Amino acid sequence: MARLGRVAVVGVGLIGGSIGMALRDRGFASTVVGVGRNPRTLERARVRGAIDEATTDLPQGVAEADVVVVCTPVDRIVEDARRVADAAPGTALITDAGSTKRRIVEGVDQQPRVAERFVGAHPMSGSERSGVDFARADLFQNRVCVLTPTSRTPAAKLHAAREFWSSLGCRILEMGPSEHDEVVAHTSHLPHAVAASLAAAVPADWLPLAAGAFRDCSRVAGADAELWTAIFRENRGPLMTAIGKFQDRLATLKYALMNDDEESIRRWWEEARARRALFEAQQSSPSNPS
Amino acid sequence: MARLGRVAVVGVGLIGGSIGMALRDRGFASTVVGVGRNPRTLERARVRGAIDEATTDLPQGVAEADVVVVCTPVDRIVEDARRVADAAPGTALITDAGSTKRRIVEGVDQQPRVAERFVGAHPMSGSERSGVDFARADLFQNRVCVLTPTSRTPAAKLHAAREFWSSLGCRILEMGPSEHDEVVAHTSHLPHAVAASLAAAVPADWLPLAAGAFRDCSRVAGADAELWTAIFRENRGPLMTAIGKFQDRLATLKYALMNDDEESIRRWWEEARARRALFEAQQSSPSNPS
Repeated sequence: MARLGRVAVVGVGLIGGSIGMALRDRGFASTVVGVGRNPRTLERARVRGAIDEATTDLPQGVAEADVVVVCTPVDRIVEDARRVADAAPGTALITDAGSTKRRIVEGVDQQPRVAERFVGAHPMSGSERSGVDFARADLFQNRVCVLTPTSRTPAAKLHAAREFWSSLGCRILEMGPSEHDEVVAHTSHLPHAVAASLAAAVPADWLPLAAGAFRDCSRVAGADAELWTAIFRENRGPLMTAIGKFQDRLATLKYALMNDDEESIRRWWEEARARRALFEAQQSSPSNPS
Repeated sequence: MARLGRVAVVGVGLIGGSIGMALRDRGFASTVVGVGRNPRTLERARVRGAIDEATTDLPQGVAEADVVVVCTPVDRIVEDARRVADAAPGTALITDAGSTKRRIVEGVDQQPRVAERFVGAHPMSGSERSGVDFARADLFQNRVCVLTPTSRTPAAKLHAAREFWSSLGCRILEMGPSEHDEVVAHTSHLPHAVAASLAAAVPADWLPLAAGAFRDCSRVAGADAELWTAIFRENRGPLMTAIGKFQDRLATLKYALMNDDEESIRRWWEEARARRALFEAQQSSPSNPS
C-alpha cells in the first residue's frame, strides 16, 4: 500500500515509537525512519519494530521524507520543526504530537517556510509510562486527534494531515490552537495536577492503607517530570484557570463540611456524579468505542 | 468446616453481599442469613448466591446467629448494632464494615451490652459500584481489614473478629478508631473528594476530549451520593485536615505556574512522582499481592 511513502519520526519515545509501529503494522509507509539523539534508544526502537531505519542526523533523516512527525517534548517542537523544514523536501507534510498547541503554532506561523508545510496535531493518547519500551501499535486506535490549522495552513497540507492521523486509527477533530489548549487544560492537564497533588498529600507511612480510589486517582503522578514540567509551563495560563475551577469545587465541599451541611454535601456529590455519568455514557456510545 | 456457624449479614449491598458470597464459597458458615429492608434486594441476594436465608425482621434474623456483621450505611451502624445486641445471643460476635470508626465505636462503647460483643472493622475494599449486583466472593481477597478494638473490647471477641475477617481473605491490621479515621481521611476519603471535584470542574461540552487521566482520576465520582454524604459527615474533621494538605500542594503548583518557576514545578512533580513510586513498590511487594 505505502500510500504515505517515507515517514520520518523525530523523537522515538512512547508516541513516536507507537506511530512507527502503527504505520509498519498496517503497511501504510514504505519506510519509517527514526531520528533521535540517543543511538541506544534508536536501536531499541528498531529491535521493537517501531522503525525501519535510524539516524542521529536530523537533516539526513528527513531529507527524503514525505511526512515528518515531530514527537519531541513540547518546548523543543518549534525549533525541531524549523530544522526539519530546512532539510525536508518542499512537498513534505510536517506535523507534531505536542500536548499543547498555541505557543507551538504561533512559533511556526512566524516562519513561513515551516508554516507552509506544518499542521499542528495532538493525538489524545498517552500513558504515565514514557519511552519506546511502552510503545504499542494500537495506541491511537479510536482516539481523538485534534488538528489545529490556522489561516496560514494550506488546504492540501490539512488534507494530508487528516489522512496521516486517520491512518493510525485516530478520529479527527479540528479546533483553534488556543481553544485546544483551554480544553486540554481541563480534560488532561488538570487531572495530572490533581493526581500529583493527591499523591504528595498522603503521608508515606499511610500508603499501605491506600486502595483503589487512591491508586486510580493518583496514577498519572507516575509520569515523567521533565515532560510534564514542559507541558505545564507551555499551558500555564489555561491550566491556572482550570485549577481555579477545581479549587472552587473543593472549597465548596470544605465549607459544607465545616457547617456539617448535609444537603449541600449531597448536592455537591450529585453534581459530580452526574458529570461523571455523562462522561461514561459518552465513552460507551457507539461513536466512541475507545 | 462451618467453623463460624450461623452468620447474619445486616444490609445486603456490595459489602454485605460479598461477605455472604465469600463465606458460602469457602464453606465457612453453616448458614448465611441476609437481613434487609427491601424484600426484592434480599431475593436478588439469594438468587446471586450471597445468602441462604432472608428476612426483613432484624430480631428474627439475628436471634440464633454466632456472628452478626452490620453492613448498613455509617450513619445507621450504631443504632443497628444496638438492635442486633438486643436480639442476638449473648455469645455472638457483632462486627461492622463501616468506612469510619471513631463515632461508631464511641456510640457502641456507651452501651455496655453492645460493647461487650462488638469489634469495629473496616475491610478496605469497595467500588464505585454499590448494590448486591456487584458483589463478588473475592472482594476481600488480600485486602487490609482494620480492626479498632477499645479498652472495652473482650480479648475473646477480638480473637473471633480476627478469625472472621481472615476467613474472608483479609489481612488484619489493628489501630485506634481515631487513628483509623485520620488515615482513611487521607487514603480513601480525600481521593473521593478530589475525584468528585475534578469531575464537576470539567465543562460537560469538553468531556468528549477527556481521556485516560480524567477517566481514572474521576472514577470514584460515580459512587453513591447517600453513602458518601454519610461517610464525609462522619469523618468531617479529619477530612477537612486532609483536604487542607491537598489544597497546599495544589496551591504550591499554582504559585509556581504564576511565576513560571521551572525549577519549582519540576521539584513539585518529582515529589509527587516519588510518593507514587513508593505506593507502587508496596503494591507489588510479595507481602501485598493485591
